[in-house]
Amino acid sequence: MIVDVSKKILIVGLGLLGGSYARVLKRFGFSIAAITKEQSSIDYALQEGIIDKGTIEIDETLIGEADLVIFALYPHVFVEWVEQYQHFLKSGAILTDVTGIKSSIVYQIQAMLREDVEFIAAHPMAGREVSGVENSTDKLFAGANYIVTPTEKNTPEAINTCMELGRLLGFSNVTTLSPEEHDEMIGFLSQLTHCIAITLMTCNDKEDMEKFTGDSFRDLTRIARINDKMWSELFVSNKEPLLHQMELFLKQFNRLKEMLETEDVEGMREMMQLSTKRRALFDKK
Amino acid sequence: MIVDVSKKILIVGLGLLGGSYARVLKRFGFSIAAITKEQSSIDYALQEGIIDKGTIEIDETLIGEADLVIFALYPHVFVEWVEQYQHFLKSGAILTDVTGIKSSIVYQIQAMLREDVEFIAAHPMAGREVSGVENSTDKLFAGANYIVTPTEKNTPEAINTCMELGRLLGFSNVTTLSPEEHDEMIGFLSQLTHCIAITLMTCNDKEDMEKFTGDSFRDLTRIARINDKMWSELFVSNKEPLLHQMELFLKQFNRLKEMLETEDVEGMREMMQLSTKRRALFDKK
Repeated sequence: MIVDVSKKILIVGLGLLGGSYARVLKRFGFSIAAITKEQSSIDYALQEGIIDKGTIEIDETLIGEADLVIFALYPHVFVEWVEQYQHFLKSGAILTDVTGIKSSIVYQIQAMLREDVEFIAAHPMAGREVSGVENSTDKLFAGANYIVTPTEKNTPEAINTCMELGRLLGFSNVTTLSPEEHDEMIGFLSQLTHCIAITLMTCNDKEDMEKFTGDSFRDLTRIARINDKMWSELFVSNKEPLLHQMELFLKQFNRLKEMLETEDVEGMREMMQLSTKRRALFDKK
Repeated sequence: MIVDVSKKILIVGLGLLGGSYARVLKRFGFSIAAITKEQSSIDYALQEGIIDKGTIEIDETLIGEADLVIFALYPHVFVEWVEQYQHFLKSGAILTDVTGIKSSIVYQIQAMLREDVEFIAAHPMAGREVSGVENSTDKLFAGANYIVTPTEKNTPEAINTCMELGRLLGFSNVTTLSPEEHDEMIGFLSQLTHCIAITLMTCNDKEDMEKFTGDSFRDLTRIARINDKMWSELFVSNKEPLLHQMELFLKQFNRLKEMLETEDVEGMREMMQLSTKRRALFDKK
Protein backbone atom coordinates (compact mmCIF):
# COMPACT_ATOMS: atom_id res chain seq x y z
CA MET A 1 0.00 0.00 0.00
CA ILE A 2 1.39 3.38 -0.87
CA VAL A 3 -1.52 5.28 0.70
CA ASP A 4 -2.25 4.46 4.34
CA VAL A 5 -6.01 4.21 4.21
CA SER A 6 -6.16 2.94 7.78
CA LYS A 7 -5.95 6.60 8.87
CA LYS A 8 -9.37 7.84 9.86
CA ILE A 9 -10.47 11.17 8.43
CA LEU A 10 -13.08 13.48 9.93
CA ILE A 11 -14.50 16.37 7.93
CA VAL A 12 -16.11 19.14 9.98
CA GLY A 13 -18.40 21.20 7.75
CA LEU A 14 -19.79 19.23 4.83
CA GLY A 15 -20.42 21.88 2.18
CA LEU A 16 -19.06 22.33 -1.32
CA LEU A 17 -15.41 22.00 -0.29
CA GLY A 18 -15.85 19.47 2.53
CA GLY A 19 -18.01 17.37 0.23
CA SER A 20 -15.54 17.58 -2.62
CA TYR A 21 -12.70 16.53 -0.29
CA ALA A 22 -14.82 13.56 0.86
CA ARG A 23 -15.57 12.48 -2.72
CA VAL A 24 -11.92 12.33 -3.72
CA LEU A 25 -10.63 10.79 -0.49
CA LYS A 26 -13.36 8.14 -0.45
CA ARG A 27 -12.16 6.99 -3.86
CA PHE A 28 -8.78 6.13 -2.33
CA GLY A 29 -10.56 3.95 0.22
CA PHE A 30 -10.25 6.13 3.30
CA SER A 31 -12.86 5.85 6.01
CA ILE A 32 -14.54 9.26 6.08
CA ALA A 33 -16.71 10.64 8.85
CA ALA A 34 -18.43 14.01 8.79
CA ILE A 35 -19.92 16.39 11.32
CA THR A 36 -22.02 19.20 9.93
CA LYS A 37 -24.97 21.46 10.71
CA GLU A 38 -27.73 20.06 8.50
CA GLN A 39 -29.06 16.52 8.61
CA SER A 40 -29.94 16.82 4.92
CA SER A 41 -26.25 17.19 4.06
CA ILE A 42 -25.41 14.02 5.98
CA ASP A 43 -28.31 12.14 4.38
CA TYR A 44 -27.21 13.21 0.91
CA ALA A 45 -23.56 12.31 1.50
CA LEU A 46 -24.43 8.88 2.93
CA GLN A 47 -26.78 8.16 0.06
CA GLU A 48 -24.13 9.19 -2.49
CA GLY A 49 -21.58 7.03 -0.67
CA ILE A 50 -19.14 9.88 -0.21
CA ILE A 51 -18.92 9.45 3.57
CA ASP A 52 -19.10 6.35 5.77
CA LYS A 53 -20.78 7.98 8.73
CA GLY A 54 -21.93 11.38 9.76
CA THR A 55 -23.85 13.29 12.35
CA ILE A 56 -25.07 16.76 13.27
CA GLU A 57 -24.08 16.14 16.90
CA ILE A 58 -20.72 16.71 18.56
CA ASP A 59 -20.00 13.00 18.57
CA GLU A 60 -17.11 12.29 20.97
CA THR A 61 -16.35 8.93 19.36
CA LEU A 62 -16.13 10.30 15.81
CA ILE A 63 -13.92 13.14 16.97
CA GLY A 64 -11.83 10.95 19.24
CA GLU A 65 -10.94 8.35 16.62
CA ALA A 66 -9.92 10.73 13.79
CA ASP A 67 -6.26 10.86 12.80
CA LEU A 68 -6.82 13.75 10.43
CA VAL A 69 -9.50 16.39 10.99
CA ILE A 70 -10.32 18.73 8.11
CA PHE A 71 -12.20 21.90 9.05
CA ALA A 72 -14.28 23.44 6.28
CA LEU A 73 -16.03 26.12 8.32
CA TYR A 74 -16.38 29.89 8.45
CA PRO A 75 -13.32 31.36 10.20
CA HIS A 76 -15.07 32.36 13.43
CA VAL A 77 -16.98 29.07 13.62
CA PHE A 78 -13.71 27.18 13.21
CA VAL A 79 -12.10 29.11 16.08
CA GLU A 80 -15.13 28.54 18.33
CA TRP A 81 -15.19 24.83 17.49
CA VAL A 82 -11.55 24.38 18.52
CA GLU A 83 -12.11 26.34 21.74
CA GLN A 84 -15.09 24.24 22.74
CA TYR A 85 -14.31 20.74 21.54
CA GLN A 86 -10.57 20.29 21.24
CA HIS A 87 -10.52 18.17 24.40
CA PHE A 88 -12.28 15.41 22.41
CA LEU A 89 -9.45 15.17 19.84
CA LYS A 90 -7.23 12.08 19.70
CA SER A 91 -3.70 12.61 20.94
CA GLY A 92 -1.42 12.97 17.92
CA ALA A 93 -4.25 14.07 15.60
CA ILE A 94 -3.42 16.43 12.77
CA LEU A 95 -5.84 19.28 12.07
CA THR A 96 -6.04 21.18 8.84
CA ASP A 97 -8.50 23.60 7.24
CA VAL A 98 -9.67 25.24 4.03
CA THR A 99 -9.94 28.82 5.28
CA GLY A 100 -9.27 31.53 2.71
CA ILE A 101 -7.39 33.83 5.08
CA LYS A 102 -4.52 32.75 7.28
CA SER A 103 -2.69 35.14 9.66
CA SER A 104 -5.81 36.05 11.61
CA ILE A 105 -6.66 32.45 12.50
CA VAL A 106 -3.52 30.32 12.24
CA TYR A 107 -1.64 31.89 15.13
CA GLN A 108 -4.79 32.13 17.25
CA ILE A 109 -5.61 28.47 16.84
CA GLN A 110 -2.06 27.25 17.28
CA ALA A 111 -1.76 29.32 20.46
CA MET A 112 -4.85 27.81 22.07
CA LEU A 113 -4.37 24.24 20.87
CA ARG A 114 -3.39 21.30 23.09
CA GLU A 115 0.31 20.41 22.91
CA ASP A 116 -0.37 16.84 21.70
CA VAL A 117 -2.26 17.74 18.52
CA GLU A 118 -1.07 19.88 15.61
CA PHE A 119 -2.79 22.36 13.34
CA ILE A 120 -1.26 22.81 9.90
CA ALA A 121 -3.18 25.36 7.85
CA ALA A 122 -3.94 25.08 4.15
CA HIS A 123 -5.89 27.02 1.55
CA PRO A 124 -7.31 25.03 -1.35
CA MET A 125 -7.80 27.73 -4.01
CA ALA A 126 -10.86 26.22 -5.61
CA GLY A 127 -14.51 27.06 -5.52
CA ARG A 128 -17.69 27.49 -7.47
CA GLU A 129 -20.50 30.04 -7.52
CA VAL A 130 -22.75 27.41 -5.96
CA SER A 131 -22.49 25.95 -2.48
CA GLY A 132 -23.51 22.89 -0.51
CA VAL A 133 -22.49 19.23 -0.55
CA GLU A 134 -25.05 18.67 -3.32
CA ASN A 135 -22.80 20.67 -5.63
CA SER A 136 -19.58 18.99 -4.55
CA THR A 137 -17.53 17.30 -7.22
CA ASP A 138 -14.32 15.32 -7.45
CA LYS A 139 -13.22 17.55 -10.35
CA LEU A 140 -12.93 20.77 -8.37
CA PHE A 141 -9.17 20.65 -7.86
CA ALA A 142 -7.55 19.83 -11.19
CA GLY A 143 -5.62 22.86 -12.38
CA ALA A 144 -5.94 24.60 -9.02
CA ASN A 145 -3.47 25.68 -6.32
CA TYR A 146 -3.20 24.28 -2.81
CA ILE A 147 -1.21 26.43 -0.44
CA VAL A 148 0.09 25.18 2.90
CA THR A 149 0.96 27.96 5.38
CA PRO A 150 3.24 26.54 8.07
CA THR A 151 4.51 28.50 11.08
CA GLU A 152 7.44 27.78 13.37
CA LYS A 153 5.07 25.72 15.51
CA ASN A 154 4.65 23.12 12.77
CA THR A 155 6.63 19.89 12.43
CA PRO A 156 8.07 18.75 9.10
CA GLU A 157 5.89 15.62 9.39
CA ALA A 158 2.62 17.57 9.64
CA ILE A 159 3.64 19.91 6.82
CA ASN A 160 4.42 16.88 4.70
CA THR A 161 1.11 15.19 5.55
CA CYS A 162 -0.77 18.33 4.60
CA MET A 163 1.04 18.60 1.27
CA GLU A 164 0.37 14.90 0.58
CA LEU A 165 -3.30 15.62 1.22
CA GLY A 166 -3.22 18.39 -1.39
CA ARG A 167 -1.67 16.05 -3.92
CA LEU A 168 -4.12 13.22 -3.17
CA LEU A 169 -6.97 15.68 -3.71
CA GLY A 170 -5.64 16.31 -7.19
CA PHE A 171 -4.41 19.88 -6.91
CA SER A 172 -2.05 20.72 -9.75
CA ASN A 173 0.18 22.95 -7.69
CA VAL A 174 0.97 22.28 -4.03
CA THR A 175 3.21 24.87 -2.38
CA THR A 176 3.97 26.60 0.90
CA LEU A 177 3.85 30.27 1.83
CA SER A 178 4.04 32.03 5.17
CA PRO A 179 0.60 33.11 6.49
CA GLU A 180 1.57 36.74 5.80
CA GLU A 181 2.69 36.08 2.24
CA HIS A 182 -0.49 34.11 1.67
CA ASP A 183 -2.70 36.92 2.93
CA GLU A 184 -1.01 39.55 0.81
CA MET A 185 -1.27 37.38 -2.27
CA ILE A 186 -4.89 36.43 -1.66
CA GLY A 187 -5.72 40.05 -0.84
CA PHE A 188 -4.58 40.94 -4.33
CA LEU A 189 -5.55 37.96 -6.47
CA SER A 190 -8.84 37.04 -4.88
CA GLN A 191 -10.24 39.61 -2.45
CA LEU A 192 -9.42 42.72 -4.48
CA THR A 193 -10.98 41.10 -7.56
CA HIS A 194 -14.17 40.41 -5.60
CA CYS A 195 -14.18 44.03 -4.33
CA ILE A 196 -13.89 45.23 -7.91
CA ALA A 197 -16.62 42.92 -9.20
CA ILE A 198 -19.17 43.94 -6.58
CA THR A 199 -18.28 47.61 -7.04
CA LEU A 200 -18.69 47.39 -10.80
CA MET A 201 -22.02 45.63 -10.40
CA THR A 202 -23.39 48.28 -8.03
CA CYS A 203 -21.82 51.57 -9.14
CA ASN A 204 -24.23 52.41 -11.98
CA ASP A 205 -27.98 52.24 -11.42
CA LYS A 206 -28.99 52.57 -15.06
CA GLU A 207 -31.46 49.87 -16.00
CA ASP A 208 -31.56 47.45 -18.92
CA MET A 209 -27.77 47.33 -19.25
CA GLU A 210 -27.92 43.56 -19.54
CA LYS A 211 -29.50 43.92 -22.98
CA PHE A 212 -26.30 45.40 -24.35
CA THR A 213 -23.63 43.67 -22.38
CA GLY A 214 -20.79 41.75 -23.97
CA ASP A 215 -18.43 39.14 -22.62
CA SER A 216 -15.99 41.52 -20.95
CA PHE A 217 -18.56 42.86 -18.50
CA ARG A 218 -19.77 39.32 -17.84
CA ASP A 219 -16.21 38.17 -17.18
CA LEU A 220 -15.50 40.98 -14.76
CA THR A 221 -18.69 40.42 -12.79
CA ARG A 222 -18.97 36.63 -12.74
CA ILE A 223 -17.78 36.69 -9.13
CA ALA A 224 -20.18 39.52 -8.25
CA ARG A 225 -22.59 36.75 -7.29
CA ILE A 226 -21.14 36.31 -3.89
CA ASN A 227 -21.87 34.67 -0.57
CA ASP A 228 -22.20 37.89 1.43
CA LYS A 229 -21.93 36.25 4.84
CA MET A 230 -18.70 34.43 4.04
CA TRP A 231 -16.97 37.15 2.03
CA SER A 232 -17.70 40.00 4.44
CA GLU A 233 -16.14 37.84 7.15
CA LEU A 234 -13.12 37.03 4.95
CA PHE A 235 -12.65 40.73 4.09
CA VAL A 236 -12.70 41.81 7.74
CA SER A 237 -10.41 38.92 8.71
CA ASN A 238 -7.86 40.13 6.18
CA LYS A 239 -8.53 43.83 6.66
CA GLU A 240 -5.04 45.36 6.55
CA PRO A 241 -3.61 43.38 3.60
CA LEU A 242 -6.81 43.94 1.62
CA LEU A 243 -6.89 47.68 2.35
CA HIS A 244 -3.30 47.88 1.15
CA GLN A 245 -4.22 46.17 -2.14
CA MET A 246 -7.25 48.45 -2.55
CA GLU A 247 -4.96 51.44 -2.16
CA LEU A 248 -2.51 50.16 -4.77
CA PHE A 249 -5.43 49.67 -7.15
CA LEU A 250 -6.87 53.14 -6.45
CA LYS A 251 -3.51 54.79 -7.02
CA GLN A 252 -3.10 53.20 -10.43
CA PHE A 253 -6.75 53.72 -11.43
CA ASN A 254 -6.44 57.41 -10.57
CA ARG A 255 -3.24 57.58 -12.64
CA LEU A 256 -5.12 56.19 -15.63
CA LYS A 257 -7.95 58.65 -15.03
CA GLU A 258 -5.50 61.56 -14.99
CA MET A 259 -3.91 60.37 -18.22
CA LEU A 260 -7.34 60.29 -19.84
CA GLU A 261 -8.17 63.77 -18.50
CA THR A 262 -4.98 65.18 -20.00
CA GLU A 263 -5.26 62.98 -23.12
CA ASP A 264 -1.85 61.51 -22.41
CA VAL A 265 -2.13 58.84 -25.10
CA GLU A 266 1.51 57.80 -24.81
CA GLY A 267 1.13 57.23 -21.07
CA MET A 268 -2.01 55.17 -21.57
CA ARG A 269 -0.36 53.11 -24.29
CA GLU A 270 2.62 52.35 -22.03
CA MET A 271 0.28 51.16 -19.29
CA MET A 272 -1.63 49.01 -21.77
CA GLN A 273 1.59 47.53 -23.13
CA LEU A 274 2.74 46.61 -19.62
CA SER A 275 -0.67 45.15 -18.90
CA THR A 276 -0.62 43.09 -22.10
CA LYS A 277 2.88 41.79 -21.38
CA ARG A 278 2.07 40.86 -17.79
CA ARG A 279 -1.21 39.20 -18.63
CA ALA A 280 0.56 36.80 -20.96
CA LEU A 281 2.23 35.28 -17.87
CA PHE A 282 -1.19 34.40 -16.48
CA ASP A 283 -2.35 32.29 -19.40
CA LYS A 284 -3.18 28.77 -18.33
CA LYS A 285 -0.33 26.46 -19.15
CA MET B 1 -34.90 36.03 -53.84
CA ILE B 2 -35.46 37.44 -50.40
CA VAL B 3 -31.94 38.88 -50.16
CA ASP B 4 -30.93 41.28 -52.94
CA VAL B 5 -27.43 39.97 -53.64
CA SER B 6 -27.09 42.23 -56.66
CA LYS B 7 -26.11 45.01 -54.22
CA LYS B 8 -22.36 45.48 -54.27
CA ILE B 9 -20.59 45.63 -50.93
CA LEU B 10 -17.23 47.26 -50.27
CA ILE B 11 -15.38 46.66 -47.01
CA VAL B 12 -12.76 49.25 -46.14
CA GLY B 13 -10.34 47.81 -43.58
CA LEU B 14 -10.04 44.04 -43.80
CA GLY B 15 -9.09 42.99 -40.28
CA LEU B 16 -10.79 40.73 -37.79
CA LEU B 17 -14.18 42.46 -38.04
CA GLY B 18 -14.06 43.38 -41.73
CA GLY B 19 -12.97 39.84 -42.56
CA SER B 20 -15.68 38.30 -40.42
CA TYR B 21 -18.31 40.50 -42.11
CA ALA B 22 -16.98 39.38 -45.50
CA ARG B 23 -17.13 35.69 -44.57
CA VAL B 24 -20.78 35.82 -43.55
CA LEU B 25 -21.94 38.10 -46.39
CA LYS B 26 -20.10 36.03 -49.01
CA ARG B 27 -22.08 32.99 -47.88
CA PHE B 28 -25.28 34.79 -48.92
CA GLY B 29 -23.82 35.30 -52.38
CA PHE B 30 -23.01 39.00 -52.24
CA SER B 31 -20.23 40.36 -54.36
CA ILE B 32 -17.65 41.61 -51.86
CA ALA B 33 -14.78 43.96 -52.59
CA ALA B 34 -12.19 45.09 -50.06
CA ILE B 35 -9.72 47.92 -49.72
CA THR B 36 -7.15 47.58 -46.99
CA LYS B 37 -3.60 48.50 -46.01
CA GLU B 38 -1.73 45.23 -46.38
CA GLN B 39 -1.46 43.19 -49.58
CA SER B 40 -1.09 40.05 -47.44
CA SER B 41 -4.63 40.57 -46.08
CA ILE B 42 -6.02 40.83 -49.62
CA ASP B 43 -4.07 37.76 -50.72
CA TYR B 44 -5.33 35.75 -47.77
CA ALA B 45 -8.95 36.81 -48.28
CA LEU B 46 -8.89 36.05 -52.01
CA GLN B 47 -7.29 32.66 -51.39
CA GLU B 48 -9.89 31.83 -48.73
CA GLY B 49 -12.64 32.97 -51.08
CA ILE B 50 -14.09 35.45 -48.62
CA ILE B 51 -13.83 38.40 -51.01
CA ASP B 52 -14.22 38.65 -54.79
CA LYS B 53 -11.71 41.39 -55.36
CA GLY B 54 -9.48 43.60 -53.30
CA THR B 55 -6.72 46.14 -53.45
CA ILE B 56 -4.45 48.25 -51.30
CA GLU B 57 -4.98 51.22 -53.64
CA ILE B 58 -7.75 53.81 -53.57
CA ASP B 59 -9.48 52.19 -56.51
CA GLU B 60 -12.04 54.61 -57.97
CA THR B 61 -13.98 51.85 -59.72
CA LEU B 62 -14.34 49.68 -56.62
CA ILE B 63 -15.44 52.65 -54.57
CA GLY B 64 -17.70 54.02 -57.30
CA GLU B 65 -19.68 50.84 -57.82
CA ALA B 66 -20.41 49.98 -54.18
CA ASP B 67 -23.99 50.25 -52.93
CA LEU B 68 -23.01 49.59 -49.34
CA VAL B 69 -19.64 50.59 -47.90
CA ILE B 70 -18.64 49.16 -44.53
CA PHE B 71 -15.82 50.98 -42.75
CA ALA B 72 -13.84 48.87 -40.28
CA LEU B 73 -11.10 51.38 -39.47
CA TYR B 74 -9.68 53.27 -36.52
CA PRO B 75 -11.91 56.30 -35.80
CA HIS B 76 -9.45 58.96 -37.02
CA VAL B 77 -8.55 56.92 -40.13
CA PHE B 78 -12.25 56.59 -40.93
CA VAL B 79 -12.77 60.36 -40.67
CA GLU B 80 -9.73 61.05 -42.84
CA TRP B 81 -10.85 58.52 -45.45
CA VAL B 82 -14.25 60.17 -45.82
CA GLU B 83 -12.67 63.61 -46.05
CA GLN B 84 -10.30 62.56 -48.79
CA TYR B 85 -12.22 60.05 -50.90
CA GLN B 86 -15.96 60.65 -50.50
CA HIS B 87 -16.10 62.23 -53.99
CA PHE B 88 -15.52 58.71 -55.44
CA LEU B 89 -18.65 57.28 -53.78
CA LYS B 90 -21.63 56.26 -55.87
CA SER B 91 -24.63 58.54 -55.58
CA GLY B 92 -27.16 56.88 -53.27
CA ALA B 93 -24.56 54.72 -51.54
CA ILE B 94 -25.11 53.80 -47.91
CA LEU B 95 -22.12 53.95 -45.57
CA THR B 96 -21.89 52.18 -42.25
CA ASP B 97 -19.13 51.36 -39.77
CA VAL B 98 -18.05 49.21 -36.84
CA THR B 99 -16.57 51.93 -34.63
CA GLY B 100 -16.82 51.36 -30.90
CA ILE B 101 -17.62 54.99 -30.03
CA LYS B 102 -20.29 57.07 -31.69
CA SER B 103 -20.98 60.73 -30.76
CA SER B 104 -17.46 61.88 -31.54
CA ILE B 105 -17.55 60.60 -35.12
CA VAL B 106 -21.17 60.21 -36.24
CA TYR B 107 -22.04 63.91 -36.25
CA GLN B 108 -18.66 64.87 -37.68
CA ILE B 109 -18.98 62.49 -40.62
CA GLN B 110 -22.63 63.24 -41.28
CA ALA B 111 -21.82 66.97 -41.30
CA MET B 112 -19.08 66.69 -43.89
CA LEU B 113 -20.73 64.06 -46.10
CA ARG B 114 -22.14 64.70 -49.57
CA GLU B 115 -25.91 65.15 -49.65
CA ASP B 116 -26.48 62.21 -52.01
CA VAL B 117 -24.93 59.50 -49.81
CA GLU B 118 -25.91 58.50 -46.27
CA PHE B 119 -23.92 57.37 -43.25
CA ILE B 120 -25.78 55.21 -40.75
CA ALA B 121 -23.56 54.24 -37.83
CA ALA B 122 -23.50 50.85 -36.14
CA HIS B 123 -21.51 49.13 -33.43
CA PRO B 124 -21.18 45.36 -33.68
CA MET B 125 -20.35 44.38 -30.11
CA ALA B 126 -18.12 41.46 -30.92
CA GLY B 127 -14.41 40.90 -30.88
CA ARG B 128 -11.57 38.60 -29.96
CA GLU B 129 -8.20 39.05 -28.27
CA VAL B 130 -6.57 38.38 -31.63
CA SER B 131 -6.71 40.59 -34.70
CA GLY B 132 -6.30 40.41 -38.48
CA VAL B 133 -8.32 38.86 -41.28
CA GLU B 134 -6.49 35.59 -40.63
CA ASN B 135 -8.40 35.33 -37.36
CA SER B 136 -11.75 36.28 -38.83
CA THR B 137 -14.60 33.83 -38.42
CA ASP B 138 -18.23 33.56 -39.40
CA LYS B 139 -19.08 32.59 -35.83
CA LEU B 140 -18.13 35.90 -34.22
CA PHE B 141 -21.63 37.30 -34.01
CA ALA B 142 -23.90 34.63 -32.60
CA GLY B 143 -25.06 35.69 -29.16
CA ALA B 144 -23.77 39.25 -29.62
CA ASN B 145 -25.39 42.68 -29.83
CA TYR B 146 -25.50 44.94 -32.85
CA ILE B 147 -26.41 48.53 -32.09
CA VAL B 148 -27.48 51.01 -34.74
CA THR B 149 -27.15 54.66 -33.70
CA PRO B 150 -29.29 56.84 -35.99
CA THR B 151 -29.46 60.61 -35.84
CA GLU B 152 -32.09 62.99 -37.24
CA LYS B 153 -30.09 63.04 -40.47
CA ASN B 154 -30.86 59.38 -41.15
CA THR B 155 -33.69 58.06 -43.30
CA PRO B 156 -35.88 55.15 -42.21
CA GLU B 157 -34.65 53.23 -45.28
CA ALA B 158 -30.98 53.49 -44.31
CA ILE B 159 -31.72 52.62 -40.68
CA ASN B 160 -33.64 49.60 -41.89
CA THR B 161 -30.85 48.51 -44.25
CA CYS B 162 -28.33 48.78 -41.45
CA MET B 163 -30.50 46.69 -39.12
CA GLU B 164 -31.00 44.10 -41.87
CA LEU B 165 -27.23 43.93 -42.22
CA GLY B 166 -26.92 43.19 -38.49
CA ARG B 167 -29.46 40.39 -38.78
CA LEU B 168 -27.79 38.92 -41.90
CA LEU B 169 -24.51 38.89 -40.02
CA GLY B 170 -26.12 36.70 -37.39
CA PHE B 171 -26.23 39.05 -34.41
CA SER B 172 -28.65 37.81 -31.79
CA ASN B 173 -29.83 41.23 -30.75
CA VAL B 174 -30.21 44.12 -33.19
CA THR B 175 -31.33 47.41 -31.61
CA THR B 176 -31.06 51.16 -31.89
CA LEU B 177 -29.74 53.72 -29.40
CA SER B 178 -28.92 57.39 -29.77
CA PRO B 179 -25.16 58.04 -30.15
CA GLU B 180 -25.15 59.55 -26.64
CA GLU B 181 -26.95 56.61 -25.04
CA HIS B 182 -24.59 54.27 -26.85
CA ASP B 183 -21.50 56.07 -25.58
CA GLU B 184 -22.69 56.13 -21.99
CA MET B 185 -23.53 52.45 -22.12
CA ILE B 186 -20.29 51.46 -23.81
CA GLY B 187 -18.35 53.69 -21.41
CA PHE B 188 -19.71 51.60 -18.58
CA LEU B 189 -19.98 48.08 -19.99
CA SER B 190 -16.88 48.00 -22.14
CA GLN B 191 -14.44 50.87 -21.58
CA LEU B 192 -14.65 50.99 -17.79
CA THR B 193 -14.11 47.22 -17.67
CA HIS B 194 -10.99 47.58 -19.80
CA CYS B 195 -9.75 50.41 -17.54
CA ILE B 196 -10.24 48.16 -14.53
CA ALA B 197 -8.51 45.19 -16.14
CA ILE B 198 -5.39 47.12 -17.14
CA THR B 199 -5.27 48.82 -13.74
CA LEU B 200 -5.53 45.50 -11.91
CA MET B 201 -2.82 44.03 -14.10
CA THR B 202 -0.39 46.88 -13.44
CA CYS B 203 -1.11 48.06 -9.87
CA ASN B 204 0.95 45.46 -8.01
CA ASP B 205 4.53 44.77 -9.03
CA LYS B 206 5.04 41.67 -6.91
CA GLU B 207 6.46 38.87 -9.00
CA ASP B 208 5.41 35.24 -9.38
CA MET B 209 1.74 35.98 -8.71
CA GLU B 210 0.77 33.83 -11.66
CA LYS B 211 1.83 30.75 -9.71
CA PHE B 212 -0.99 31.26 -7.26
CA THR B 213 -3.71 32.77 -9.35
CA GLY B 214 -7.19 31.34 -9.60
CA ASP B 215 -9.94 31.79 -12.12
CA SER B 216 -11.33 35.04 -10.72
CA PHE B 217 -8.14 36.99 -11.36
CA ARG B 218 -7.87 35.42 -14.82
CA ASP B 219 -11.47 36.39 -15.58
CA LEU B 220 -10.98 39.99 -14.49
CA THR B 221 -7.81 40.41 -16.53
CA ARG B 222 -8.59 38.48 -19.72
CA ILE B 223 -9.16 41.81 -21.47
CA ALA B 224 -5.95 43.26 -20.02
CA ARG B 225 -4.30 41.99 -23.20
CA ILE B 226 -5.29 44.97 -25.19
CA ASN B 227 -4.55 46.67 -28.49
CA ASP B 228 -3.00 49.82 -26.99
CA LYS B 229 -3.20 51.87 -30.18
CA MET B 230 -6.90 51.23 -30.73
CA TRP B 231 -8.07 51.42 -27.13
CA SER B 232 -6.20 54.60 -26.24
CA GLU B 233 -7.89 56.21 -29.25
CA LEU B 234 -11.31 54.84 -28.22
CA PHE B 235 -10.83 56.11 -24.65
CA VAL B 236 -9.92 59.63 -25.79
CA SER B 237 -12.76 59.64 -28.34
CA ASN B 238 -15.21 58.87 -25.54
CA LYS B 239 -13.47 60.90 -22.88
CA GLU B 240 -16.35 62.58 -21.01
CA PRO B 241 -18.72 59.58 -20.82
CA LEU B 242 -15.84 57.33 -19.75
CA LEU B 243 -14.58 59.77 -17.09
CA HIS B 244 -18.10 59.91 -15.71
CA GLN B 245 -18.23 56.10 -15.45
CA MET B 246 -14.78 56.04 -13.82
CA GLU B 247 -16.03 58.49 -11.21
CA LEU B 248 -19.13 56.41 -10.47
CA PHE B 249 -16.88 53.39 -10.01
CA LEU B 250 -14.42 55.28 -7.77
CA LYS B 251 -17.21 56.60 -5.58
CA GLN B 252 -18.59 53.12 -4.93
CA PHE B 253 -15.13 51.54 -4.53
CA ASN B 254 -14.25 54.15 -1.93
CA ARG B 255 -17.55 53.47 -0.16
CA LEU B 256 -16.63 49.78 0.07
CA LYS B 257 -13.15 50.68 1.32
CA GLU B 258 -14.63 52.86 4.06
CA MET B 259 -16.99 50.09 5.10
CA LEU B 260 -14.02 47.74 5.40
CA GLU B 261 -12.05 50.32 7.38
CA THR B 262 -14.91 50.72 9.86
CA GLU B 263 -15.73 46.99 9.74
CA ASP B 264 -19.27 47.80 8.67
CA VAL B 265 -20.17 44.17 7.92
CA GLU B 266 -23.86 44.93 7.47
CA GLY B 267 -23.09 47.60 4.87
CA MET B 268 -20.78 45.27 2.97
CA ARG B 269 -23.34 42.48 3.04
CA GLU B 270 -26.02 44.80 1.64
CA MET B 271 -23.74 45.81 -1.20
CA MET B 272 -22.91 42.15 -1.91
CA GLN B 273 -26.58 41.22 -1.87
CA LEU B 274 -27.41 43.96 -4.38
CA SER B 275 -24.47 42.86 -6.50
CA THR B 276 -25.60 39.22 -6.42
CA LYS B 277 -29.17 40.16 -7.33
CA ARG B 278 -28.12 42.40 -10.20
CA ARG B 279 -25.59 39.96 -11.62
CA ALA B 280 -28.31 37.36 -12.02
CA LEU B 281 -29.85 39.61 -14.71
CA PHE B 282 -26.65 39.34 -16.72
CA ASP B 283 -26.59 35.56 -17.04
CA LYS B 284 -26.61 34.46 -20.64
CA LYS B 285 -30.08 33.44 -21.69
